[in-house]
Amino acid sequence: MNNITTPAIKVIKADTSKLKDVDFNNLAFGANFTDHMFECDFKDGEWQTPTIKPYGNLVMSPAAKVLHYGQAVFEGMKAYKDDNGDVHLFRPQQNIERINKSSKRMAIPEFPEEIMMEALKQLVALDKDWVQPGRGNSLYIRPFVISTQVGVSASPSNAYKFMIIMAPVNAYYTGDVRVVIAEEYSRSADGGVGAAKAAGNYGAQFYPTNLAKEQGFDQVIWTDSNEHKYLEEAGTMNVFFRINDTLITAPTSDRILDGVTRKSVLKLAERAGINTEVRKLTVTELVDAAKAGELKEIFGSGTAAVISPVSAFSYKDVVYDIDKQDDSYATKFKNDLMDIQYNVSEDPFSWRVKI
Amino acid sequence: MNNITTPAIKVIKADTSKLKDVDFNNLAFGANFTDHMFECDFKDGEWQTPTIKPYGNLVMSPAAKVLHYGQAVFEGMKAYKDDNGDVHLFRPQQNIERINKSSKRMAIPEFPEEIMMEALKQLVALDKDWVQPGRGNSLYIRPFVISTQVGVSASPSNAYKFMIIMAPVNAYYTGDVRVVIAEEYSRSADGGVGAAKAAGNYGAQFYPTNLAKEQGFDQVIWTDSNEHKYLEEAGTMNVFFRINDTLITAPTSDRILDGVTRKSVLKLAERAGINTEVRKLTVTELVDAAKAGELKEIFGSGTAAVISPVSAFSYKDVVYDIDKQDDSYATKFKNDLMDIQYNVSEDPFSWRVKI
Repeated sequence: MNNITTPAIKVIKADTSKLKDVDFNNLAFGANFTDHMFECDFKDGEWQTPTIKPYGNLVMSPAAKVLHYGQAVFEGMKAYKDDNGDVHLFRPQQNIERINKSSKRMAIPEFPEEIMMEALKQLVALDKDWVQPGRGNSLYIRPFVISTQVGVSASPSNAYKFMIIMAPVNAYYTGDVRVVIAEEYSRSADGGVGAAKAAGNYGAQFYPTNLAKEQGFDQVIWTDSNEHKYLEEAGTMNVFFRINDTLITAPTSDRILDGVTRKSVLKLAERAGINTEVRKLTVTELVDAAKAGELKEIFGSGTAAVISPVSAFSYKDVVYDIDKQDDSYATKFKNDLMDIQYNVSEDPFSWRVKI
Repeated sequence: MNNITTPAIKVIKADTSKLKDVDFNNLAFGANFTDHMFECDFKDGEWQTPTIKPYGNLVMSPAAKVLHYGQAVFEGMKAYKDDNGDVHLFRPQQNIERINKSSKRMAIPEFPEEIMMEALKQLVALDKDWVQPGRGNSLYIRPFVISTQVGVSASPSNAYKFMIIMAPVNAYYTGDVRVVIAEEYSRSADGGVGAAKAAGNYGAQFYPTNLAKEQGFDQVIWTDSNEHKYLEEAGTMNVFFRINDTLITAPTSDRILDGVTRKSVLKLAERAGINTEVRKLTVTELVDAAKAGELKEIFGSGTAAVISPVSAFSYKDVVYDIDKQDDSYATKFKNDLMDIQYNVSEDPFSWRVKI
């Protein structure tokens, strides 16, 4: 951590708002941005004045290290408006700690936690009107850090930019997600950066995901790179399997992201008395359970879609369909999470942070 | 490949040159750039007008995909000036083909080969005065592609920018390189993007390399992520081992970059009648050879340093020193390569391309 004591955040307000120009009923996910953004530069060995300013383009050298060496990390989180018009963040401290873990793995200086929390609160408060009411609507918040030193030599940057940008989003409807279990391509290596939200982890998935799409599927369930034996993540989400009434998910590791929604689901399952197992699950075990009629559900968990039910998986060119359950865990956890996020239910774990 | 027939490259010349402001005797590697750059945008499904223009900053959205998902690839190559003042590229077709292979793996549209070659030739010709004479001096050339679509959803970009920027560099003196053999961290996974010059591969190495530096070493020799048993790459270079008089290097795979200098060294070794083995070499075999006095040399190969001799390696906290050889292969290959690059020797394999 840096030695800065929390300085005041400098605020430069936008002259006009773009709010009236936005069609909130037809939002492409994460493509319209609010009036303001947060920016803080790292140079001469320390973070400079944290600033909220009008959202706008960056002027960047074509030799900026982020463009060449992918030294960059990010987070994804959301703000939700309740029926009283109050706005809430969901477990922001988790994202704040995680982006610094990601930064450490990518040799990026950590950002002071207290400034990050204050920046989130002030930025969301300033652009509060961009958080639309209605269950499913939310403000997607994207903190990220990029390396900005000018130079095409492969070494850590001496300059960085920490930013927060925000985009209003509608409910992220994924439909019936059909997935392919990875048999050839991999997401991450033991000893690699899979547990970090490092930029390059995501771009690296696009090609194998395109191949899955060409075969009529939506996403890839990643397996370990050594043997393609263990089930690890689904696309850009953590993944849960319900075999009979037991909920199984992979343990976190240096290959698997420590997802905030993942750990929230585990907590909610525990509260509901659902048997959970955090353990390695083999593809063989999954296929056997599917054949025996014991595989009840697969679902992904992540900030964007909250919970994303999987309707079929393919393995070695055999497609296994998964019937909808009347007592769906996916539906239950999605409702439980959204009830907390939208301040409809109590908040037994103190996950909400009111702006 | 795209369906463009080679269009003329639009050229916008700089009003003034920065050449006189540069201290060519004190160049930080890849930090000073020439007067011009090449730029070509991809949008609406095709590459637009290829353009050479004054070197300058980019205006970029903070939501450009490259900053969030690392969907970016690059190449490294050099131009050399001979004693007649003529400028030569070294095997440019290799880099042209490889950047498109990298692009494919990163779901980036390939760039027309003939336009890339023409762009390289015209750009180097225009900034020819930036290629300084003298063995060791060269013009480092950095072609790269970045994803520019605005949007923070993790999917392939629909817009890209292909660029070439160039920086004069002095001889890249690495000194006595001391390396640590990786026992915990990894560079890439089976089925991952290690064989691509994908941006994220490089940023991911910074932290483990910093750890090596804290222990008094310069670089990491990467091993396979499964067992840390096989020797794969050295830092950002391919790596060669000389055991007695046999030269050994790892076979290319989806974890290992198909290096241009690597394949040139193999060709030169073959020409010199040196026994080469392209095979997996285990750490155990290396340690045994070192103990038996049979390990004569280790060296890295890459565009920046050409050949980079290793003077010691560490494994399980034991440091093995490597004595200098009178008949050093590293020295021989470095001289052979530079003789070809600087047009001092014949060019038996037609590797030079005169501008």
